[in-house]
Amino acid sequence: MDLVALYAQPEDSQAFDKAYLETHLPLIRQVPGLQQIELKRIQRTLMGDGCYMLAIMRFEDEQALKSAMQSPEMQAAGDNLNTFAEGLVTLMYADDAE
Amino acid sequence: MDLVALYAQPEDSQAFDKAYLETHLPLIRQVPGLQQIELKRIQRTLMGDGCYMLAIMRFEDEQALKSAMQSPEMQAAGDNLNTFAEGLVTLMYADDAE
Repeated sequence: MDLVALYAQPEDSQAFDKAYLETHLPLIRQVPGLQQIELKRIQRTLMGDGCYMLAIMRFEDEQALKSAMQSPEMQAAGDNLNTFAEGLVTLMYADDAE
Repeated sequence: MDLVALYAQPEDSQAFDKAYLETHLPLIRQVPGLQQIELKRIQRTLMGDGCYMLAIMRFEDEQALKSAMQSPEMQAAGDNLNTFAEGLVTLMYADDAE
């Protein structure tokens, strides 16, 4: 199961990138059960209201994701996120659709 | 480079799923240069305005994606999409952010 984060366009994208890559990502990588993180930066929006970045964090299953969400490591990552991305984040659980 | 599609919640999700999986996905799979498609169905939204589904279509590079976008196969897939998902789609180009 995946934890999917969509990030809306930040006012200062350089500051956002620096905070995300240098402080947030290392904290996310410490979350127990995280198997993989895919980080996509949007280059161009062709249709609809686009976003700035998306992160797909993969866990073994729902139980592993739920445990991860309650871990002190995720709490620390969430607290950190609020320091630079408050109001920009959409956070969702997702399953492979096929 | 990736083509990312976000789908907003359809009125009739069963009809959407049927159209997507049985008609749209086979057309997308014929697009030249498509290396992989990841299809994620959103199970729960924890924060922000969530969506219904996301599709991440991977191409070798920007040139491969641009060629694919102009192919008759993508035209057919886009025409098909408009028959069941008009107004629901956000379409973006994305690069790996790391």
